[in-house]
Amino acid sequence: MSSGSRVLVHETWGDHAALLARASSGPQGSVGRVRPQLLDVATPQAPLELQRGGRLERVAVAYETYGELDSQGTNAVLIEHALTGSAHAAGVTDREDVPGWWDPLIGPGKAIDTRRFFVVCSNVLGGCYGTTGPSSIDPVTGRPYGPDFPHYTVRDMVAAQHRLLTALGVKSLRAVVGGSMGGMQVLEWAVTHPEMVRAIAPIAIGARHSAWAIGLNEVARRAITADPAWQAGRYPLERQPETGLGLARAIAMLTYRSYDSLEQKFGRERVGAGEEASADRALDASFQIASYLEYQGVKLVKRFDANTYLSLTRAMDDYDLAEGRGSLNQVLAGIAMPALVMGIDSDVLYPEAEAKALVERMPNARYVTLSSPHGHDAFLIEYPQVAAQLRRFLTGD
Amino acid sequence: MSSGSRVLVHETWGDHAALLARASSGPQGSVGRVRPQLLDVATPQAPLELQRGGRLERVAVAYETYGELDSQGTNAVLIEHALTGSAHAAGVTDREDVPGWWDPLIGPGKAIDTRRFFVVCSNVLGGCYGTTGPSSIDPVTGRPYGPDFPHYTVRDMVAAQHRLLTALGVKSLRAVVGGSMGGMQVLEWAVTHPEMVRAIAPIAIGARHSAWAIGLNEVARRAITADPAWQAGRYPLERQPETGLGLARAIAMLTYRSYDSLEQKFGRERVGAGEEASADRALDASFQIASYLEYQGVKLVKRFDANTYLSLTRAMDDYDLAEGRGSLNQVLAGIAMPALVMGIDSDVLYPEAEAKALVERMPNARYVTLSSPHGHDAFLIEYPQVAAQLRRFLTGD
Repeated sequence: MSSGSRVLVHETWGDHAALLARASSGPQGSVGRVRPQLLDVATPQAPLELQRGGRLERVAVAYETYGELDSQGTNAVLIEHALTGSAHAAGVTDREDVPGWWDPLIGPGKAIDTRRFFVVCSNVLGGCYGTTGPSSIDPVTGRPYGPDFPHYTVRDMVAAQHRLLTALGVKSLRAVVGGSMGGMQVLEWAVTHPEMVRAIAPIAIGARHSAWAIGLNEVARRAITADPAWQAGRYPLERQPETGLGLARAIAMLTYRSYDSLEQKFGRERVGAGEEASADRALDASFQIASYLEYQGVKLVKRFDANTYLSLTRAMDDYDLAEGRGSLNQVLAGIAMPALVMGIDSDVLYPEAEAKALVERMPNARYVTLSSPHGHDAFLIEYPQVAAQLRRFLTGD
Repeated sequence: MSSGSRVLVHETWGDHAALLARASSGPQGSVGRVRPQLLDVATPQAPLELQRGGRLERVAVAYETYGELDSQGTNAVLIEHALTGSAHAAGVTDREDVPGWWDPLIGPGKAIDTRRFFVVCSNVLGGCYGTTGPSSIDPVTGRPYGPDFPHYTVRDMVAAQHRLLTALGVKSLRAVVGGSMGGMQVLEWAVTHPEMVRAIAPIAIGARHSAWAIGLNEVARRAITADPAWQAGRYPLERQPETGLGLARAIAMLTYRSYDSLEQKFGRERVGAGEEASADRALDASFQIASYLEYQGVKLVKRFDANTYLSLTRAMDDYDLAEGRGSLNQVLAGIAMPALVMGIDSDVLYPEAEAKALVERMPNARYVTLSSPHGHDAFLIEYPQVAAQLRRFLTGD
């Protein structure tokens, strides 16, 4: 297997598409072919005023929906994506046959049952999957916003989503669910629109970004801004700072996994060092872990925008649920709706203690540990555990 | 304290010189002013043959000694430094008034008592503090070796040290002591020269570099090699890739600390956001953690060489105590001398389990946890704990 091992590494583990394809082939149904949609949620007549000042006069939000909204507009479940995610949470689109990023959890008969719920997932404000963000064309200049895109926050993301849901006729949310940066939005929804949100399920996240998480984002951003191709953010979209963005992704990927999962998968294996090569180990060959990290970077560069990465990670660092709202304890005590809070025991980036600390102060919250060797990304890997918890939570009205 | 907070952050924590100055002012003595020395350990007549092939015909080793060698040559303690360390482990040199990196542990009456022991610390092969390495002048070309410096390993470091000790008249080592990359050398000494080593104390290290540690080194190296100033390693020494090396250091610094220590020290504080600024928080100001990481990078760039960083981290990744020696269990079972193995409970980079696993197979080893919030660097911070353990270990013959 010498010559094939490099490829095998990538195909057997960490390849999201392959993983989803397998996970999706269960007895439960797929939502099938889905249509990405777009809605203008801000116009010059109704601009989006931003938390840190400034406004956006044109905001389009890309979204997908699965299932049917009931006549009262009360059966919606809002799904929030993570840093490099998109609105494509379930089913397959015309453009790409890749299942949505949470496809094993969303569909007829699945944990988030589309026979029962109207499921909505939208690309966040500032994203690069259809919603207005740094890679969108600024109508004033005719060029991409790039570094001139205004500073936005998680609260602004929620404000844009709120306009989308209102336009869709959603009066009340059965639940808001999401992990990582998605979990930040979940908690912001609970605090900003308590009258509209009947339940929340934040996963692998705490109440504010830690120094540790900020520091890790900071080095990732510096990898991008140190790349000469970044050009202070004014790169042509077809020539973005690939080296810097790839390195940022490699740094982040390490923190999305764990010591144990990387050790089990790669250990000290080298690229091409298969069985027949073991007698004469190619000690100059690079380690498989290095190859894996490079591959993850190359993959992201093909599908993501560097300025978007910079601005989204800044919004994450800015995230502090209590900011301007009194003490954190007070804010958490005010989250009265039922909450299912999940943490991951091997999470390096957002240690489980962060999620546990939420539950200590929330009056109606239950804490569940997702037990996994896979680290932070476990919420995108451990589908049976996540599904079982969400199914129970969503059926137990 | 608004205007001063940026400076304060750096001076009150993580400033090694200030920390050492305080720690050194105890009742025990200093070794005083020390003289860096240099010895040629390889010549064209007696070249150093390298583990991975190739040879070095000129190797000078920079070293310091404290205390006196006894007439039998049996009272030496060898101190092994970590990645960016040097031979300057104790006292003060003429050039710089900065105490050595382990000064609180080495001196008359201290844990490693120079009234009793002849203490030796040398800069590793491949280093940039006087010992021959990538930043040394290649006698053949008259230019720095740079990327042409041959591939060397931890075993080669030990081979160069062995020549130094032999030349100094050391017949037997009372102990070999060191943390992190220093601990790798400690273990290699025990396996390579069991007849010469009477005790070992490896700290915060395991038997081989993990996928996690390799991955972290890999992204740090990529930060350097992505910097255009690196020039494939052929930069003039006075114009090295500062941005890349600084970023590599910032990435590494995160892993030398811990979630808790960074949270306690920096939390979400911003640069210049003191008390009087709190009413109108400067939300665009950078976080103190970002400033701290940048500062650590700037500091390293002034004192370290980028090609050296690349080659030393490659040697660390290459480190596998069992390579070519049978099973790891067999190798560890063969380490018969008394061993004090210390691990750090908050170590992110080399989790305590690595050090514990050593002790499980070593027949004469005792395990001690260094309890600290400070992560991997605790062996350079928690002096009282380290001192107490080493003192007990070294006096209990």
